[in-house]
Amino acid sequence: MRQDDEAPPYVPQAPTAYGKPPPGWRRHMYDVIFEADTPAGRRFDIALVCAILLSILVVVLDSVPRLHHDHAELLNVLEWGFTVLFTVEYVARLVCVQRPWRYAGGFYGVIDLLAVLPSYFSLLMPGTELLLDIRILRLLRVFRIFKLTLYIEEYTRLGEALAASRRKILVFLSVVLMAILILGTVMYVVEGPKNGYTSIPVAMYWATVTMTTVGYGDITPHTNLGKAIASFMMLMGWGILAVPTGIVTAEMTLRHGDRRMGPARTARHCPSCGSGGHEAGARFCKDCGAALPAGHGGAK
Amino acid sequence: MRQDDEAPPYVPQAPTAYGKPPPGWRRHMYDVIFEADTPAGRRFDIALVCAILLSILVVVLDSVPRLHHDHAELLNVLEWGFTVLFTVEYVARLVCVQRPWRYAGGFYGVIDLLAVLPSYFSLLMPGTELLLDIRILRLLRVFRIFKLTLYIEEYTRLGEALAASRRKILVFLSVVLMAILILGTVMYVVEGPKNGYTSIPVAMYWATVTMTTVGYGDITPHTNLGKAIASFMMLMGWGILAVPTGIVTAEMTLRHGDRRMGPARTARHCPSCGSGGHEAGARFCKDCGAALPAGHGGAK
Amino acid sequence: MRQDDEAPPYVPQAPTAYGKPPPGWRRHMYDVIFEADTPAGRRFDIALVCAILLSILVVVLDSVPRLHHDHAELLNVLEWGFTVLFTVEYVARLVCVQRPWRYAGGFYGVIDLLAVLPSYFSLLMPGTELLLDIRILRLLRVFRIFKLTLYIEEYTRLGEALAASRRKILVFLSVVLMAILILGTVMYVVEGPKNGYTSIPVAMYWATVTMTTVGYGDITPHTNLGKAIASFMMLMGWGILAVPTGIVTAEMTLRHGDRRMGPARTARHCPSCGSGGHEAGARFCKDCGAALPAGHGGAK
Amino acid sequence: MRQDDEAPPYVPQAPTAYGKPPPGWRRHMYDVIFEADTPAGRRFDIALVCAILLSILVVVLDSVPRLHHDHAELLNVLEWGFTVLFTVEYVARLVCVQRPWRYAGGFYGVIDLLAVLPSYFSLLMPGTELLLDIRILRLLRVFRIFKLTLYIEEYTRLGEALAASRRKILVFLSVVLMAILILGTVMYVVEGPKNGYTSIPVAMYWATVTMTTVGYGDITPHTNLGKAIASFMMLMGWGILAVPTGIVTAEMTLRHGDRRMGPARTARHCPSCGSGGHEAGARFCKDCGAALPAGHGGAK
Repeated sequence: MRQDDEAPPYVPQAPTAYGKPPPGWRRHMYDVIFEADTPAGRRFDIALVCAILLSILVVVLDSVPRLHHDHAELLNVLEWGFTVLFTVEYVARLVCVQRPWRYAGGFYGVIDLLAVLPSYFSLLMPGTELLLDIRILRLLRVFRIFKLTLYIEEYTRLGEALAASRRKILVFLSVVLMAILILGTVMYVVEGPKNGYTSIPVAMYWATVTMTTVGYGDITPHTNLGKAIASFMMLMGWGILAVPTGIVTAEMTLRHGDRRMGPARTARHCPSCGSGGHEAGARFCKDCGAALPAGHGGAK
Repeated sequence: MRQDDEAPPYVPQAPTAYGKPPPGWRRHMYDVIFEADTPAGRRFDIALVCAILLSILVVVLDSVPRLHHDHAELLNVLEWGFTVLFTVEYVARLVCVQRPWRYAGGFYGVIDLLAVLPSYFSLLMPGTELLLDIRILRLLRVFRIFKLTLYIEEYTRLGEALAASRRKILVFLSVVLMAILILGTVMYVVEGPKNGYTSIPVAMYWATVTMTTVGYGDITPHTNLGKAIASFMMLMGWGILAVPTGIVTAEMTLRHGDRRMGPARTARHCPSCGSGGHEAGARFCKDCGAALPAGHGGAK
Repeated sequence: MRQDDEAPPYVPQAPTAYGKPPPGWRRHMYDVIFEADTPAGRRFDIALVCAILLSILVVVLDSVPRLHHDHAELLNVLEWGFTVLFTVEYVARLVCVQRPWRYAGGFYGVIDLLAVLPSYFSLLMPGTELLLDIRILRLLRVFRIFKLTLYIEEYTRLGEALAASRRKILVFLSVVLMAILILGTVMYVVEGPKNGYTSIPVAMYWATVTMTTVGYGDITPHTNLGKAIASFMMLMGWGILAVPTGIVTAEMTLRHGDRRMGPARTARHCPSCGSGGHEAGARFCKDCGAALPAGHGGAK
Repeated sequence: MRQDDEAPPYVPQAPTAYGKPPPGWRRHMYDVIFEADTPAGRRFDIALVCAILLSILVVVLDSVPRLHHDHAELLNVLEWGFTVLFTVEYVARLVCVQRPWRYAGGFYGVIDLLAVLPSYFSLLMPGTELLLDIRILRLLRVFRIFKLTLYIEEYTRLGEALAASRRKILVFLSVVLMAILILGTVMYVVEGPKNGYTSIPVAMYWATVTMTTVGYGDITPHTNLGKAIASFMMLMGWGILAVPTGIVTAEMTLRHGDRRMGPARTARHCPSCGSGGHEAGARFCKDCGAALPAGHGGAK
């Protein structure tokens, strides 16, 4: 399809931005770690993804009380094993690029560092509560999986579609937030602290739970007026929340449609002035007026 | 895009409707307060939005019991500070327009007044319950943010799309309300007061909670027949509630499509063969090759 | 648009089907009760809708314990007043049509009768429980409102869209019911009666509550395996339930689009053979080959 | 439509794949059991579907404690009756095909066997818990209903639409799973075991319940930060979950549109002027008026 040729191809942050080193062992390492097209690079990437997934599994399993109690030793060893592995990998990345600071300061460099820091941090401060607060950063390792997905074209399209609706989404979000603020306050006034609406922020939390149709039921209206307002909110909420679906669907249908239903143009070029993109039915060049060769149906 | 030039631009309630005063200090004040295009007017608008957001934040924080207890003094001072600020602003608006009554009686004049009245009202009647009931009006200050959004073109489009589906939405709502009434009554009869369905209005509240898929769980069917009817309602509810999504999406897809896929054709006809439907950029007739008159933009 | 002319117009059950009586008082009554186009008929219809809405309001309010206790007398009188009114109306309808049995046996005749019967029934059997069971039929009065809506064109389109997707909806429903049966049984086996899944029907009720994203929370999985299966069901449920939205939206977009984006055909007719529906760009009749007059742009 | 001719028609697993036996009693049985077009085959299929539905009903009713207690005998007899019936049917299928192993090893052969095995299994191991675990396989009988649906064209289209969006759905699912993992961990850290988030898997279950808008309410955030994060998740969740709806709707709209709005054009070219793109019904060239060769249908 022609549009695709013209559309600027999505360029993921090129690893060469960090500088390809001159031939030698560093170049060899670079090819293995940063390149994805060579067989060695491919194997490295697949191994890395497995390691990341396994390290996440260890963190997740370690959080289950029973497993933590029974296998504390093993899980701890595994956790440190992965931490050391990722540290080695991080150092190797630093070593084999031409401009290490550029890598360290870039998005993936920071993520790679954050993926190992919490473990070392927990050595210095063994406080349980703090450790838990820091452990959250560990999960950022997950983002490394995104490296894989850079090669999957679909992500790009999804991102493009959402970026194209950026302004619409912002407007929608501000309307929703205003509605949540106003309706939350109304319910705070109507129901009051005695029915669970202890403050406006809590009432706004309830309004969000209601408008997104989640409906936990931890806070529910008890007065008749409150129930009436909540009923109205639910119906309105559905209408409002039909909008993001509408935005995404419209974007997808048209993006899709452009490709499929696109204008029936032919690949013919004017023999006189060389201009292209003529309609399937055109018999004369729309730019210079010269006769066009009879089309063979045209491109699809 | 051409359509945009022809489409009547959305005109927010023009501030000049209140009458631009003759040059002098009032004119200067008018330019700062009502105009948004001058640097001073811009700065004023941004400062106003910040003040509104901060005043809302104060109201919200004041509702949190712990903060209200610890910082009652500070929050009270801030609340009165904003009230005085908005009062001064309201008076300034009255002073600098030619026809103050027109402003005071208009939509924004009323909102501006309602944004300060509750505070003064609370002085006269210090009853806690009443104060809470009145405090709700304070939140109308939020609407002042809409002033900002008048300049965001997106709101207009969203409103247009919804207005275009007005009749469809009304029909849909009446069908939904009828279903809620009938199914609520059925459940009131089937489950009865002993299972939480204490009256038909309560049963209708439950039906709304169920059909919109919110599902608090504060009232749930306990009998087998009630569970069967509720299951049927949920499935039906999903079907019914797919309709507003359909309406909004269809509106968006087509509105969007008109702009993107709409062939940019002109109303020009070939002076030689009379054929029409030429592309906006065509300079020669695609049917006979004669030169086309230069297009003046052309039709939609 | 041409399609609209060709599409068989939706014909509501014509009141004349019951037989228009010969001129006289019965004809006059018929015109008032059955006709909607005459001023008297219009006034009657509006009065009837108000009476129906008020009678429903009385039934609804009577179900509220406090109101029932305080105003039992008044509500009872109103209820009987509306019952007598609707009985008189029913008899009047029977009297003024040519073929009363046709009316009495038709859809609206049955509804009209059912709208008054429960009240009389409650006289014979004053048992409270039975009365409640019968009272449900009273609500069928609501359907009389549909009489109004017959004249609203929108209902027709909604119905058409749904009828057009009839087969798709049936297939979808059978898939959903199968999924509910299988997943309900799985959860009954996994969680068992001790966690609230007391039988397969109850587990199917839970599966419906979960897949439609209602989520009351009256029954929730307690085992780890149950939680995992439930999580999977929720994600799958969203995918499955995107289908009815897709069906309705696709139907609406295309129905809409047909009208708006319809083929760019002109109103020109062939001067030689009289055939119509030529494309905007056609210069010769596609049916007989005669030259067509130059189109003036043609249809939108 | 031309695409349809080119698209490989969906071929359900042909029963002839198991080998049609030579004429005789086996051939007769084969025609009854495997063929659906003959009157006898049709009657057999309908009887089979009824038997399957009834046998499922027996299993479902048997799970209701009250019915199991009162009618244990009857339900047990019925259950065994259906088991014997389906066993006889299974043997009959094995007998009348040419290549029994091909049938027994195929998808439907395995399903047919699994539909009867659990009953026999329960004889060997009368342990209640184990029986319950095995009983789940019984429900696989349900899949036999799919035999019916093979003949319903709609299923095919639904499957095609989903298969066409396969990659998009995978990408979407991986994004959702990542979001569930990260947000679940965040909530585990923020809320902790004391508020019900006992482990990361449980927190991920909660994240799934929240993002899919099911919202049981068995686990809810209790801290202010947790409520804020949950509110953010709900709004984000709606955005994310608009994507599958968008995918399905876009697929349906375009698939539908191709059929309805696709111009019914043929590949014929005018023998006189060479212009193409003529309508299916056109008999003369729309560009030069020459007679067109008779179309071979071409379009749908």
